Amino acid sequence: MPDAISAMHDAGAAARIDVGTFLELVALYQAYASALDARQYDRWPDFFVDDCVYRLQPRENFDRGLPLATMAFESKGMLKDRVYGVTQTLAHDPYYQRHVVGTPIVHRCVGDTIESEANYAVFRTRQNELSEVFNVGRYVDVVHRTPAGLRFASRICVFDSEMIPTSIIYPI
Amino acid sequence: MPDAISAMHDAGAAARIDVGTFLELVALYQAYASALDARQYDRWPDFFVDDCVYRLQPRENFDRGLPLATMAFESKGMLKDRVYGVTQTLAHDPYYQRHVVGTPIVHRCVGDTIESEANYAVFRTRQNELSEVFNVGRYVDVVHRTPAGLRFASRICVFDSEMIPTSIIYPI
Amino acid sequence: MPDAISAMHDAGAAARIDVGTFLELVALYQAYASALDARQYDRWPDFFVDDCVYRLQPRENFDRGLPLATMAFESKGMLKDRVYGVTQTLAHDPYYQRHVVGTPIVHRCVGDTIESEANYAVFRTRQNELSEVFNVGRYVDVVHRTPAGLRFASRICVFDSEMIPTSIIYPI
Repeated sequence: MPDAISAMHDAGAAARIDVGTFLELVALYQAYASALDARQYDRWPDFFVDDCVYRLQPRENFDRGLPLATMAFESKGMLKDRVYGVTQTLAHDPYYQRHVVGTPIVHRCVGDTIESEANYAVFRTRQNELSEVFNVGRYVDVVHRTPAGLRFASRICVFDSEMIPTSIIYPI
Repeated sequence: MPDAISAMHDAGAAARIDVGTFLELVALYQAYASALDARQYDRWPDFFVDDCVYRLQPRENFDRGLPLATMAFESKGMLKDRVYGVTQTLAHDPYYQRHVVGTPIVHRCVGDTIESEANYAVFRTRQNELSEVFNVGRYVDVVHRTPAGLRFASRICVFDSEMIPTSIIYPI
Repeated sequence: MPDAISAMHDAGAAARIDVGTFLELVALYQAYASALDARQYDRWPDFFVDDCVYRLQPRENFDRGLPLATMAFESKGMLKDRVYGVTQTLAHDPYYQRHVVGTPIVHRCVGDTIESEANYAVFRTRQNELSEVFNVGRYVDVVHRTPAGLRFASRICVFDSEMIPTSIIYPI
């Protein structure tokens, strides 16, 4: 794990990533958010490499290196299981999600690997209710270039609150 | 209307748009938001071509292809009428808007036409009240290159909630 | 102070800034937000030149040219004093901040000076509470190129509400 906030070096790192790759990275972040917000959960695992990590974790646990996480998956197969659970088996009141994601900060870009992060806010809208702040935090990511394009090798969603309005059903 | 969330192709589409045009597109999105937030409503129609479409529509109606919309205008003249109504004739408690808009996803860029979308969150602040989430959703856009720069041929604001805190007065 | 919302000229101004500089500017905005959200307050003054201005000001006062501000500092030394106050002497309930910041609009780029602005939303999370909208507005900035990279010569945070949930302790 890199020092996630070595931001004074970021301008330099961003300069060392070529513009085309940076814009692909931006597109990856936005496409990921867009697919989730459109409830196209079947497509969610496709944003990852096969041997991937996905975690949704409160900030305090992440900062202290504690393992406890709200969601923790360690392969694309586990992501697909989660999608199956979300779409086929879990009984829950559906809600809409809407992600607004900042531009990624590039911490490192070496070979086919990019280490980056971005702040996010996710809003939730339940039927017949007002939209509300649901989950805010940052993505801490490792991205690989694959023949199919950029994919997440690791995406850790580090959120600011230990409390959330109700249990989180869908990926962030 | 393109498949609005064909995101796996987005990185490719984004790569096919040249960097200068993409940054102009980003600037268009931000300038549009900035003008509305500054209450410069007179400038709002100038972000559109003459023969334009603007709609503000709940997500459920948009997804089902239903026509019902909170606002629906089909020419720059109708936009100007709306501005007149908002600034001169409507009796309402004024409020501030603040847009935070994600980076656009480019679905297609052919000739002088760009099909793109972006997530947005609009916050409302009424006098002597706290800022609050007002309207979240995504812009589904068709943008044309004109001699004066990029302009919206169509902007559909697809918002997540059917409920809104009170009636929407200003454009989103 | 430039006309802060001369947005129809923005696409032109953005085109006149070279792509590398623009992406450095984007990285500066995101790194600034990231450092504050990580509570690395010691690093906050380093985003500024020595002879700098930082103000946090309600929109109504800014728009009318009134001097009253929630925070107003006029040198890097004053910023360091504030950091000392925040981290060492102020008695307050700590809270997390999370910034989601739009892409900057470039109003002017002449020599080593950039005039730009960007919308922001800051969310606050207090211990054992839900995340909430805390402060929304726009950054009105003057940025200088220095040997160490881009730095703020002036950053004015113009926020939409005169009311805030409780007093603002940390910089925005």
